[in-house]
Amino acid sequence: MAGCRAGENRLMTRQRGGPIVGAAGLGDDAMIRIGSLNAGGSVRRSLNIDFRLCAAEALIKIDASIETLAGLIRKAGAAGCDIAILPEDCLCTTGWTAASPSQAGEVLGPAVERLLAHLGETAAAHNMYVICCNDRMDDEGSIRNTAFFLGRDGRQIGHYDKVCFPVQEFLKVPGDSFPVFETPDLGTVGMLICYDMVFPETARCLALEGADIIFNPTVGGAAFGGAEISRAAFRTRAVENFTYIVVSWGGWGTDVGSVIISPKGEILAESLEPGGMAMVDIDPFGGRDNADWSNAQTDMRARLFRERRPETFAQLTQTTPKALEKLPEIQPFPPREIAAMVRRATTMGHVEYERAEQLLRDGETGQAVAAFEKLIEDYPSTWFDRTARKRLAELQDPEEDRR
Amino acid sequence: MAGCRAGENRLMTRQRGGPIVGAAGLGDDAMIRIGSLNAGGSVRRSLNIDFRLCAAEALIKIDASIETLAGLIRKAGAAGCDIAILPEDCLCTTGWTAASPSQAGEVLGPAVERLLAHLGETAAAHNMYVICCNDRMDDEGSIRNTAFFLGRDGRQIGHYDKVCFPVQEFLKVPGDSFPVFETPDLGTVGMLICYDMVFPETARCLALEGADIIFNPTVGGAAFGGAEISRAAFRTRAVENFTYIVVSWGGWGTDVGSVIISPKGEILAESLEPGGMAMVDIDPFGGRDNADWSNAQTDMRARLFRERRPETFAQLTQTTPKALEKLPEIQPFPPREIAAMVRRATTMGHVEYERAEQLLRDGETGQAVAAFEKLIEDYPSTWFDRTARKRLAELQDPEEDRR
Repeated sequence: MAGCRAGENRLMTRQRGGPIVGAAGLGDDAMIRIGSLNAGGSVRRSLNIDFRLCAAEALIKIDASIETLAGLIRKAGAAGCDIAILPEDCLCTTGWTAASPSQAGEVLGPAVERLLAHLGETAAAHNMYVICCNDRMDDEGSIRNTAFFLGRDGRQIGHYDKVCFPVQEFLKVPGDSFPVFETPDLGTVGMLICYDMVFPETARCLALEGADIIFNPTVGGAAFGGAEISRAAFRTRAVENFTYIVVSWGGWGTDVGSVIISPKGEILAESLEPGGMAMVDIDPFGGRDNADWSNAQTDMRARLFRERRPETFAQLTQTTPKALEKLPEIQPFPPREIAAMVRRATTMGHVEYERAEQLLRDGETGQAVAAFEKLIEDYPSTWFDRTARKRLAELQDPEEDRR
Repeated sequence: MAGCRAGENRLMTRQRGGPIVGAAGLGDDAMIRIGSLNAGGSVRRSLNIDFRLCAAEALIKIDASIETLAGLIRKAGAAGCDIAILPEDCLCTTGWTAASPSQAGEVLGPAVERLLAHLGETAAAHNMYVICCNDRMDDEGSIRNTAFFLGRDGRQIGHYDKVCFPVQEFLKVPGDSFPVFETPDLGTVGMLICYDMVFPETARCLALEGADIIFNPTVGGAAFGGAEISRAAFRTRAVENFTYIVVSWGGWGTDVGSVIISPKGEILAESLEPGGMAMVDIDPFGGRDNADWSNAQTDMRARLFRERRPETFAQLTQTTPKALEKLPEIQPFPPREIAAMVRRATTMGHVEYERAEQLLRDGETGQAVAAFEKLIEDYPSTWFDRTARKRLAELQDPEEDRR
């Protein structure tokens, strides 16, 4: 525990410059130091595996990635963290396996084995917990998106398979439950992966199972519409359940980051810097006192979970909600076809898009138009579709891109 | 509909000064003009019924209140609103019925009847919908907290009984369902009352039933912890369900207000001014287009409601969540005893508190201490308890109140 660091009191700062950004509190035997790593932006680009590599080459690249990630974990260990967490798809394998689904097992099998072995050793060396997340191949040969929870001895305490997939992940196999894991010092631990957070049901299920902290490896946010509404949604997930939420971020952009949120929805620590870490000392068993005019509770869950009316919530578990009767079909195809199309977009789409842009830069307008039209046809409703339409509009009205 | 006002385009402003604050859009036949009234702060104080009045006197005061509320509705009608909404407990009867529960029916019966008759006439005169909310006495003689939905002809389309009570409302009888109401121009309408919003299940049930707009008469917020986190939670309820949310506020303070939120979680209009109105033109059937990198939808509910995994959400409808095994009991008593204690606090508590403060001002320190100690004993865990403890601490350490 973080007790040996009594007297330290880092104030919360929100900055892009530093590697460690947090609000570590007064050292106290009940406090746990959490480090949530940011492996997005430039870090993620450095981990990327070119989809044209063969399996053996991909594994060499993955070995290097594991060393990079272990370095981040060591940094958290050196800072005295009791637990460190890495983001979703931490080995950045989704692009490669999208291009070579028939060889996914050849890479994912050894990749995840090596990841857990190496990070387990690092965890044990620092006597800390570690959470990491990546696609894995299960015993039936299906790909799952899984978060692993390693103990202070480096051994796996348990894992969580992502339950709520965005439509583009529908070729993977989802989990069917929200397990929680009891620990003596972190309290009851739950995990959610990325898109799970868009659905209030997921965090609620974990909270009702008793989760005190929810760890969230992710490459995305908690709501459609950008970083700002996403932060509002993360904070709401925390305060509606009175749980701590620890987000470790690993997306491609740079406008969002790793964040640690209190059971009152307060942002305790945040890191927007790739390679940085949000860090804070918390009491997983406390911080839940709250009140309204009429009443106060030491742990507000004692009220909220008794004020719920589960007997009136039948709609939540019905397979076909009534709303679907009036809603349009999913666009542009049935879900599994969208997933297959996006798998191609994730790999060849980038190459074809770059080629179209190069044609434009080279003044080969006719060929560029044809290339953009093909992107629209091949990757409907994706970013390529939208961007290609924009380019064609600009070509029709050259003033468009100056507006 | 708001089509006759083509060309108007009020920009959204956020201010305390004006009576009408909103972002009315371009007039369009598909657009609906919504006015969400703010009857909090000074308006609420003007409506308050002294709990020491007899039933007949209370009804005279209520007649005046109904005329005040009808005036607000007329203002919305004059501004061209297609619907106007008033806050929870709009007749401010809870204090009076808390003091005289055995006479509640004598007052609530005629009060609600007159309210619906008068507001119905006003609605019909302006060819607009109206939503209002107050405690009512049901046919079994139980008090319910109910939102009423009146049509453009002034007749009742339906009502909603609040489902999720805070512990202090446990002597009332809650609703058991989340009804929705189909309309040709507002789409599918749902209602939630105040504390319902703290629970993500409630808005979700309405959305799964097909609600396009959720109207929310309230005196409180959507989360514990003040106006800022509450706004985040209101926005999250909207974006997680891709529904419009219309909040009409009627609390005692002045730091929050009426607000209208889009299905993307954007604040479209807001009024913090007592007697003011948040107003905006919306298309209840549109405004739900959204996208991520891989996919875009015209109506994002088409994806979200198919990506949910209701078969994994069993915990949500279980009567006794596992979390309760490790959580403390509700404080300070069983729920119905808390509700009874708060009923006394709501009425006599104020008188006794004012007396204690007066004793302090008069220099009668010994008597003041005894009065504050009695408040702590009589109204545990309430605002009186907390404030009385603060006063006693200040008396022990006079510097305390200058810090």
